[in-house]
Amino acid sequence: MEGLRVGSVLLTGCDGGLGLGLLKGLLEQPSPPRHIFAACLDPQGKAVNEVALGFPNVMILPLDVTDPNSIKAAVRKVQTEVRSAGLNLLINNTGTTRRSTFATETAENMSLVYTTNTIGPLQTSQAFLPLLKKAAEAEGQREMSCSRAAIINISSILGSIEVAEAWEERQDICYRCSKAALNMLTKCLALEYGSSGILCVSVDPGHVTPPLEQGMGPVTLEESVRGVLQLLAQLSATNNGTFWDWRGQRLPW
Amino acid sequence: MEGLRVGSVLLTGCDGGLGLGLLKGLLEQPSPPRHIFAACLDPQGKAVNEVALGFPNVMILPLDVTDPNSIKAAVRKVQTEVRSAGLNLLINNTGTTRRSTFATETAENMSLVYTTNTIGPLQTSQAFLPLLKKAAEAEGQREMSCSRAAIINISSILGSIEVAEAWEERQDICYRCSKAALNMLTKCLALEYGSSGILCVSVDPGHVTPPLEQGMGPVTLEESVRGVLQLLAQLSATNNGTFWDWRGQRLPW
Repeated sequence: MEGLRVGSVLLTGCDGGLGLGLLKGLLEQPSPPRHIFAACLDPQGKAVNEVALGFPNVMILPLDVTDPNSIKAAVRKVQTEVRSAGLNLLINNTGTTRRSTFATETAENMSLVYTTNTIGPLQTSQAFLPLLKKAAEAEGQREMSCSRAAIINISSILGSIEVAEAWEERQDICYRCSKAALNMLTKCLALEYGSSGILCVSVDPGHVTPPLEQGMGPVTLEESVRGVLQLLAQLSATNNGTFWDWRGQRLPW
Repeated sequence: MEGLRVGSVLLTGCDGGLGLGLLKGLLEQPSPPRHIFAACLDPQGKAVNEVALGFPNVMILPLDVTDPNSIKAAVRKVQTEVRSAGLNLLINNTGTTRRSTFATETAENMSLVYTTNTIGPLQTSQAFLPLLKKAAEAEGQREMSCSRAAIINISSILGSIEVAEAWEERQDICYRCSKAALNMLTKCLALEYGSSGILCVSVDPGHVTPPLEQGMGPVTLEESVRGVLQLLAQLSATNNGTFWDWRGQRLPW
């Protein structure tokens, strides 16, 4: 296994959970990225600073994906670092949810979760487009890949309309709707940016899914991170605009 | 063709367009509904009042699907009319859009369109659930159908992530994401309310699609209405939680 080789990565939601796991995983790759931008709501957070300690290739950045000014400031900082090489990989990992049933779901929940899970990745992708394009051009005629230029949207199997996973365990309409909409955004990004050499894929990291049937059970954070990074290393042009899980299996919309 | 036979229907978005067309179409059925609740943003509107003129089975109701108090008031009025028979059919037709490209899409557009197209149908369905349940019970052991109890969400082929229709003609990310999320809502409604005998289906009325290839071209409002009502007359339990177009063809998510 060669691992993921990529010049620069921006990863949102590094305050904890999967974001922090992916940050560790990137640092443990055989050829770690030259630049890792660990975007956090709280850049002073203990957890992210511990993980980044002693790694000069990690820059911890403040980023609120629901605030255009915060996104703009992050773009400027990344630009100063990567210069003409651009940004190779944007991982839209920030996400939120509210536990709810059909009886308790509210407009407030729906709006709040959509703003973070769907509008956030849209605005972040729009803002980083120039840097992603630069990376795609800098890598010239190479085939599309996460090493050249890509946007990875961290989605969820709960966002698959076809599968409708774990309905009995958690309804969370606000979350399911936001992730189905995020999957639509992935498809739109693939259609729009594909011609610029930027790959866009939705990924279900798996460990958010509660235990169910055999083979569909919980996955540890470490297994999830290993699976996701292995998947990213393998994605190519034919996968543009598709939906995958951490095991490298294609998911239906 | 027997047409759609249903005791009571509430149809949102009767101010114009497809809503007004469906209202006309329902009145022209061989056995028109005993009660048609034509929900409008402007119940004084000329168009809807002209269509309803001379039809004592039509009640024009004010309804803003983004306002919980407005929805509650509508539920009370419907309840007074239908009493123990309940409401057989709720058609969530109200929708809005903003024309946009990837370069011009905004958080404001995204929120506004999601609020009307996705949160609106959620809140309307939640509020009318008791009346829909009552209708499902009143019709006893009959198979699921639009005549017994159903929620029809007027979606769009533009909300199909798989098809990604008409991308070159209109991007409208805000609209596509809201309709993909609405399709998720349809699936969730089907899972949740199905056991109560309430059918839930997404329908693409077709005429919003601009001309494309042969066979995918524009459809007149009349053809769309005829097709949608014919489809509704044929839906049964096996179609619960699925997505169809006005031609009676199943659509992928």
